[in-house]
Amino acid sequence: MARWEGNTRARLERAALELFAEQGYDRTTVAQIAKRAGLTERSFYRWFPDKREVLFGGEELEQCFVGAIEAAPEGADPLTMLMAAFGKAPEVIRPREFLRERSAVISANPPLLERELMKLATLSQALISALERRGVEPRTARLATDAGMAILRQTSRRWVSDENADHARLLSDSAADLLAVLTSGAQNDSGDGSGRHG
Amino acid sequence: MARWEGNTRARLERAALELFAEQGYDRTTVAQIAKRAGLTERSFYRWFPDKREVLFGGEELEQCFVGAIEAAPEGADPLTMLMAAFGKAPEVIRPREFLRERSAVISANPPLLERELMKLATLSQALISALERRGVEPRTARLATDAGMAILRQTSRRWVSDENADHARLLSDSAADLLAVLTSGAQNDSGDGSGRHG
Repeated sequence: MARWEGNTRARLERAALELFAEQGYDRTTVAQIAKRAGLTERSFYRWFPDKREVLFGGEELEQCFVGAIEAAPEGADPLTMLMAAFGKAPEVIRPREFLRERSAVISANPPLLERELMKLATLSQALISALERRGVEPRTARLATDAGMAILRQTSRRWVSDENADHARLLSDSAADLLAVLTSGAQNDSGDGSGRHG
Repeated sequence: MARWEGNTRARLERAALELFAEQGYDRTTVAQIAKRAGLTERSFYRWFPDKREVLFGGEELEQCFVGAIEAAPEGADPLTMLMAAFGKAPEVIRPREFLRERSAVISANPPLLERELMKLATLSQALISALERRGVEPRTARLATDAGMAILRQTSRRWVSDENADHARLLSDSAADLLAVLTSGAQNDSGDGSGRHG
């Protein structure tokens, strides 16, 4: 993270986040972001194709996760591969206070929320493909990825909001919580109501 | 579904889907959709705020699901409430061959894909809120909804692609598959790799 803090890209991300928070996403221009970062517009476009992209460094996360899936031991099941991948998130994610503000800015600006959803869908697709390359059957790869992303989203929310939380611990707690949700449902399967209108 | 087949809204949806498939989303105008449906542009705007909205009848699905959660028996766990809700999907969803073509058109057109993701996020949020109103703790409501949506997505994909599939059966099969993915992962928890760089 120290490396991220000092680099050009990080300065642009921080500047954009500050401006989006201060004056809104719509009223912020690329020129303003570059100026706030002490850089030129040309520098901005070396890093990002457009204004909407500046808060999404998703390809680092994707490369990190996909690399971990590729490196997982032979015979590992899909969820284990995903959990190993997610365990590496702290190596690439932004500092907590940045992510906290980023989350607030994204929620408040629909164009950013749309981009966030697209990025998450792209990340999911990359994980599914990586699992398939490891021999996982497509339907299972998708279901495991959906489950994994549910675990990762809960982990991220809790990690960002709690200064003292340990990422690895939150990952395994969230996986246990997801399992608990599913097993309490299975025990009551007769009450699923699907026969009510049959 | 018979009701949907004959109504104005259905004619607009079918016309839009045909045109998007034939000439692409970008090159299709609201005027063309209305003309193909034998209606006026004004009729179109009585049903949809813009061209991007025409394939998303999400509010019917949302009302159906939220109503089922509200009607679930006292003390039902969150996943059971969601499964009861999803069991009602066949009452409101479009015919299979329509959904199959819709899925292909959405995948091929990024603006529609973005809208689809936003609609799914909105649906998820409505389910989370409905569960919270039934007394489910927010974190559990979110996790149960994420799990439920994973089950619903797999069910929908299989239902659309297999003419003979039964929706209720696919729902319970998909729930069982998700549980299997999670439990095989839990058994191998020591291999989650989170300690490798520790």
